[in-house]
Amino acid sequence: MREVFHQSLEDVQGRLVEIAELVTVAIDKATRAFGTSDVALAEEVIEADAVIDDKAIELDELAIEILARQQPVARDLRIVVSALRISASLERMGDIAEHIAQLTRMRFPERAIPKGLKSTFTKMGALDVEVARKLTELLRTEDPALADEIRNDDDKLDDLHVSVFEKVLSDTWQGEASATVDATLASRYHERFADHAVSVAKKVVYLSTGDWTVETDTIDVVVPVQ
Amino acid sequence: MREVFHQSLEDVQGRLVEIAELVTVAIDKATRAFGTSDVALAEEVIEADAVIDDKAIELDELAIEILARQQPVARDLRIVVSALRISASLERMGDIAEHIAQLTRMRFPERAIPKGLKSTFTKMGALDVEVARKLTELLRTEDPALADEIRNDDDKLDDLHVSVFEKVLSDTWQGEASATVDATLASRYHERFADHAVSVAKKVVYLSTGDWTVETDTIDVVVPVQ
Repeated sequence: MREVFHQSLEDVQGRLVEIAELVTVAIDKATRAFGTSDVALAEEVIEADAVIDDKAIELDELAIEILARQQPVARDLRIVVSALRISASLERMGDIAEHIAQLTRMRFPERAIPKGLKSTFTKMGALDVEVARKLTELLRTEDPALADEIRNDDDKLDDLHVSVFEKVLSDTWQGEASATVDATLASRYHERFADHAVSVAKKVVYLSTGDWTVETDTIDVVVPVQ
Repeated sequence: MREVFHQSLEDVQGRLVEIAELVTVAIDKATRAFGTSDVALAEEVIEADAVIDDKAIELDELAIEILARQQPVARDLRIVVSALRISASLERMGDIAEHIAQLTRMRFPERAIPKGLKSTFTKMGALDVEVARKLTELLRTEDPALADEIRNDDDKLDDLHVSVFEKVLSDTWQGEASATVDATLASRYHERFADHAVSVAKKVVYLSTGDWTVETDTIDVVVPVQ
């Protein structure tokens, strides 16, 4: 039974890694599409999101099956419950990639990135891809150092998010209302992505260290500017 | 054992209702604070969010304990897993109430509601409170008609959300960038709240009808305007 359970867990872990890889591809394509107004690339992201959703559902069904058949307790039980939560976060990260792609498509043939914010969004996009890669690696290796790196990247993204608001609310901002709306939404999506990654990373560290503090999910920068 | 399980489930249900009641209070206070720039009321919401978070954590621990001790299978297992998901959504709805309160506090003593959008946000706030009340009642009674009403209210909120973008992007919009940012974020928070409610409502209907289609969570209006 123990052996069977171990194999099931490896299956769960392998599927989480697979979903994280798909999310990494999605965020890479979405942020590049956003940066270059590449509507074809944006369409790819929008279409592919259904695959991420399906994989998350399959994983959830597998986790429920493991609970039913193998009736794990203690640490084993918490691992399976955590997998359910992690899959929900990964699925949501896929949605956010899709949102960025939708913004790109909506503005096409205009550029979705407001003038004066190109370098900021390029940095945010690159950091989001980094975060997604590290998260995939963390799910594969359970190396807690990666969780620290993800937290650091999230801090940088929070700073960049605040800097977008500072720019938009400064006297020199000449963007029209549509540019202000786009900057606000796009910046929030780029920043939220990393919040979910931090939340997943914490759970993976719990899984590997046995520190079982259940905690609520997301730390959120909601305040545009002080 | 069956009797014990039944009592446990009633305990879970009672706690979900209790959290939903707290979320209803939070969204009622938050949207009123936002509408009247009542910073004291906003502070109440921000402080009270920790209570919602704690109750959600306690419920999750109870659910995990039920899984471990009573090892439910089939429908019973899915009920407990659904409770974990519902608690996550309710907790997130509490966060959104807090976000609206934070926007209010940040703009104080200025008004957080941009000029020309007061009646729209009043409607959105009233609908959000309605949705929260209906959701609480649905959790208590499992009356599927309430789920339909919540879906209708969500449609109305989506329409209002789109109308905010139409206003902000119209030629007559004279708001400064800060008003545009506030309108964008506040409208998104008001609209997201109902998305989570729809997601919870679906799960409750599954619980009472036995229709177990697992599905991914949220339907999102991300596109400012066509």
